[in-house]
Amino acid sequence: MPSPRSDALRVTLRSMADRMHANPGMDLPTLRDMMDELQAQSAEPTAVTYEEVETGGRPALWCNPLDSATDRVILYLHGGAFVANSKDTHRKVAAHLAKATGCRALVLDYRLAPENPFPAQLDDSVAAYRQLLHVGVEPGHIAVAGDSAGGGLATSTVLKLREDRAALPAGIVAISPWYDMEAKGETFDTNAAHDAFTTRPTTLALAAMFLGRNGSAIDPLANPLYADATGLPPVYLACGGYEALRADAERFASLAADAGVDVTLEVSDGMQHIYPLMAGRAPEADLTIANIARWLRPKLGLSG
Amino acid sequence: MPSPRSDALRVTLRSMADRMHANPGMDLPTLRDMMDELQAQSAEPTAVTYEEVETGGRPALWCNPLDSATDRVILYLHGGAFVANSKDTHRKVAAHLAKATGCRALVLDYRLAPENPFPAQLDDSVAAYRQLLHVGVEPGHIAVAGDSAGGGLATSTVLKLREDRAALPAGIVAISPWYDMEAKGETFDTNAAHDAFTTRPTTLALAAMFLGRNGSAIDPLANPLYADATGLPPVYLACGGYEALRADAERFASLAADAGVDVTLEVSDGMQHIYPLMAGRAPEADLTIANIARWLRPKLGLSG
Repeated sequence: MPSPRSDALRVTLRSMADRMHANPGMDLPTLRDMMDELQAQSAEPTAVTYEEVETGGRPALWCNPLDSATDRVILYLHGGAFVANSKDTHRKVAAHLAKATGCRALVLDYRLAPENPFPAQLDDSVAAYRQLLHVGVEPGHIAVAGDSAGGGLATSTVLKLREDRAALPAGIVAISPWYDMEAKGETFDTNAAHDAFTTRPTTLALAAMFLGRNGSAIDPLANPLYADATGLPPVYLACGGYEALRADAERFASLAADAGVDVTLEVSDGMQHIYPLMAGRAPEADLTIANIARWLRPKLGLSG
Repeated sequence: MPSPRSDALRVTLRSMADRMHANPGMDLPTLRDMMDELQAQSAEPTAVTYEEVETGGRPALWCNPLDSATDRVILYLHGGAFVANSKDTHRKVAAHLAKATGCRALVLDYRLAPENPFPAQLDDSVAAYRQLLHVGVEPGHIAVAGDSAGGGLATSTVLKLREDRAALPAGIVAISPWYDMEAKGETFDTNAAHDAFTTRPTTLALAAMFLGRNGSAIDPLANPLYADATGLPPVYLACGGYEALRADAERFASLAADAGVDVTLEVSDGMQHIYPLMAGRAPEADLTIANIARWLRPKLGLSG
């Protein structure tokens, strides 16, 4: 049974879907403003300070939990379908994850589509990772994490680093990842009555904005469901049981396991897309963040 | 000459005005989402932690600069015309002000109009102030501050406390205050070509939402330009030279001085409404915040 407090996200997502349905021509500023309200889903974590920086030419935000390891970093890639959201909307969830893990998080403002279609986002995330190496952070002390579009980008970032024969990070964390640019997942159908926001038409429209004129929905770096996962570091996948995108996480878990990757898949019963954004508000979000942190700490060389 | 960096606020305000003009029937969720983007005007202050609490029955956010005096408090009342914005949009500017002053800030989520018209906002801010006293903060160690609608509310809060014969705070800080519910100020005309957002029709429409069916535009607690300011603690008023609401600050400065109140008025040449929101981004904002802090520290019993 979903907790009563977790219903806040469902209500918000449903309200957003209703507003898009009532306004089919919703312009991009209105869509972005609306999606930015997702920031309110996360409680303020205590005992964290912040610092704006430029990383690989893009704005980014350090989340620095007091008394955390400063040489261990979660590179956090925010969701928002590649067209919306920012370091500001996802500051709190990234800080919760960093605090639980005992390290810092760097939240990247990668460029957004449709003004900057694929692979601009990937270029920015790879540049941010390389900048971390450049300033002396060890690859084994970095995790690449993200939610929704950012979960897909976290995965494709490491796929690209592997292609470039760069030193790989210690792990990938993909929360409610969006991989499938073709919207083929069967959970679009089986969770149609449960998912408060995501539908096939919306997903395909957003995919078209992300891919632009030259991108391909079956490019493995745009859609990791077409990737060979061989050689990836350990992957933690979390998704809600009620998500239309649940199949994205399940299909990637399956293909990565088949390629010999160490994969963990957590499906949180009755939860909506990006439910861990309710960090500090809903017990399901806090549990998943604690699970990710427990999984991640030893991979980053942190005790406990 | 306005700094190049300060132009960001003008561009944002103009874009908001253009969107309202293009969409005269803009619904309230869209208006609120749009206005919430003002949060991006403020840079993240470093070395501040945050904590959500409930104060006087309403959500509020502590901004705790590291190494600041924990027993001195700025009660911060956010702007947004009484219909929009929250502790989340104004967290950063309140934290900048607290950090510069060397104390904590408590940012209050008072109830919004039109769902909750006047005096709901005043009831909430007075309750928050009384709660601070209740937990042992000395009145002389509290400043009540705010911007725009929150600057008006900061003033009316202390007027109400005086009416109730409560112990008064050490000072009032009103940044680009909105007092005039009749939109009578001559700077609506003289700054019409300069102010990027505020017009008489918009102001009167927002005033009607704030006042509701039973509120009066000449009630001194809704419109402090009709108040007797006798006995108020020292007041710091800051406003932009290009504001349509510049006359609000000037008229209140004049009436308060006539009533024997210690008043300081800073008019920042060429600046737009709520320019201190650009804290950490534009030198004019940082200068005003430093000026307020220098004025406020001795009033709160903080050194130098």
